[in-house]
Amino acid sequence: MPRQQFRFCHRLRVRWAEVDRQDIVFNGHYLTYFDVGMTEYCRAAGIPYPEGFTEAGTDLFAVATRLDYHGSATFDDLLDVCVRIARIGHSSIRFEFEIHRDQAHLVSGELVYVNADPATREAVRVPEFVREAVRRFEGRDPSGRD
Amino acid sequence: MPRQQFRFCHRLRVRWAEVDRQDIVFNGHYLTYFDVGMTEYCRAAGIPYPEGFTEAGTDLFAVATRLDYHGSATFDDLLDVCVRIARIGHSSIRFEFEIHRDQAHLVSGELVYVNADPATREAVRVPEFVREAVRRFEGRDPSGRD
Amino acid sequence: MPRQQFRFCHRLRVRWAEVDRQDIVFNGHYLTYFDVGMTEYCRAAGIPYPEGFTEAGTDLFAVATRLDYHGSATFDDLLDVCVRIARIGHSSIRFEFEIHRDQAHLVSGELVYVNADPATREAVRVPEFVREAVRRFEGRDPSGRD
Amino acid sequence: MPRQQFRFCHRLRVRWAEVDRQDIVFNGHYLTYFDVGMTEYCRAAGIPYPEGFTEAGTDLFAVATRLDYHGSATFDDLLDVCVRIARIGHSSIRFEFEIHRDQAHLVSGELVYVNADPATREAVRVPEFVREAVRRFEGRDPSGRD
Repeated sequence: MPRQQFRFCHRLRVRWAEVDRQDIVFNGHYLTYFDVGMTEYCRAAGIPYPEGFTEAGTDLFAVATRLDYHGSATFDDLLDVCVRIARIGHSSIRFEFEIHRDQAHLVSGELVYVNADPATREAVRVPEFVREAVRRFEGRDPSGRD
Repeated sequence: MPRQQFRFCHRLRVRWAEVDRQDIVFNGHYLTYFDVGMTEYCRAAGIPYPEGFTEAGTDLFAVATRLDYHGSATFDDLLDVCVRIARIGHSSIRFEFEIHRDQAHLVSGELVYVNADPATREAVRVPEFVREAVRRFEGRDPSGRD
Repeated sequence: MPRQQFRFCHRLRVRWAEVDRQDIVFNGHYLTYFDVGMTEYCRAAGIPYPEGFTEAGTDLFAVATRLDYHGSATFDDLLDVCVRIARIGHSSIRFEFEIHRDQAHLVSGELVYVNADPATREAVRVPEFVREAVRRFEGRDPSGRD
Repeated sequence: MPRQQFRFCHRLRVRWAEVDRQDIVFNGHYLTYFDVGMTEYCRAAGIPYPEGFTEAGTDLFAVATRLDYHGSATFDDLLDVCVRIARIGHSSIRFEFEIHRDQAHLVSGELVYVNADPATREAVRVPEFVREAVRRFEGRDPSGRD
């Protein structure tokens, strides 16, 4: 998927403590970058995380993730974390991510969340205002079956 | 895949700083747990990481990972990080992981590494002594095509 | 202060993701090690954290810390995190720490917590059962003025 | 020391994974914020870290730190990490830090580095161009005895 399919990218700089002895970002830290990207995407789309969900009585919980590392980032690199919501199912939201450093495409990935009752962890339908906000922000209908 | 398929598990305790506002381990930290498990697996199998590789002039670089979160761990939990090498290809090694808390199966995942020249990042065949050590430790032949 | 003044040490192994490009543990991670040591000390002393405090309606909040780095730890090192409660004031508890790798004394430090109401953050007197547990565990009276 | 004594502040946003069960930033992460602030200070002062040092054959190693926590930051807070070099001794550099959220002064601290030969860890005099750059950036002479 080419980068232009993303309407939203967030820029961040690699920190010293995120780089390991191989002089590259430790593989787990990209999930922190995804998380930062997801927070900024939600803010931009008008459904600030977590209030946009917790005020409706639910919260998002990660259920699956996948990352492909094509290249590696190192200290002080400026990275573009590109984010989109690819699909909203009954109770799930699937984010897709790409991380780029200038023209170099370093990481691809996705993160699937379930919208659930924080107490019982039971899945709850993603509210209509979230679907509507994403429809407006992405310019397409993200809803579909899980 | 049932837990008994793993010949190796490493026990660790969840740290305070790994638990977030939802009172669960942040999703990215499971990759740190996988990494700790991989290190201990290699030690147990007689190919201590990274010397077992770097002394032969190569090193392992993550190329892909996948995690499925079935449940969530919280502060002070004792977790069993179960690890196996499922497949060794020409230059790749695929680790499989499960994380359990007592009888609760919390996380499944895999992590694929490529054995590469650290300078050029070009893929290099996984050395025979690594294949032999894993064959002995797992009691089966892990080699196959990538 | 020589190591024998500590009645309690907790052993842990340095993780890959904690080591930076200088091939040493990033300075901030020693506070994670202190935190792990504090948790294990409280467990050993019979005042498990945080329940020992939260069940009495208060919690501990860090107010000051100090670290001196005499040497550096690296990947896979086995470290002894030695912990003692040096002083319990009206509402404060001062922990002292030393981190050793075999005979090498790598880090010294302290961490002062205030016992406070989680809602108001107002300081509350450290409960008598905590003082008593520490008195028994340390074999001396830790109470004093802040 | 009032905030206006700092000629340099760097703004960052608290990440989800940095906030713990108490709904505040874990105490150790402030050292990551200090480190980010130190990197940006050096860039602004014209001595980019680490090249400004490693190209001269030395590197900086933390020898001591101190933090006072006056308040606490939480998820999504925008923080100003204010940084100054308070003193350059023969081979040491002492950074001072303050972290503010709007008008709230949350953390004060310092971090002392020694300029050393990376191989032997022996202290080496801080180069004249570093002293000169700081003199220009701070508008005062930072040199003094350790």
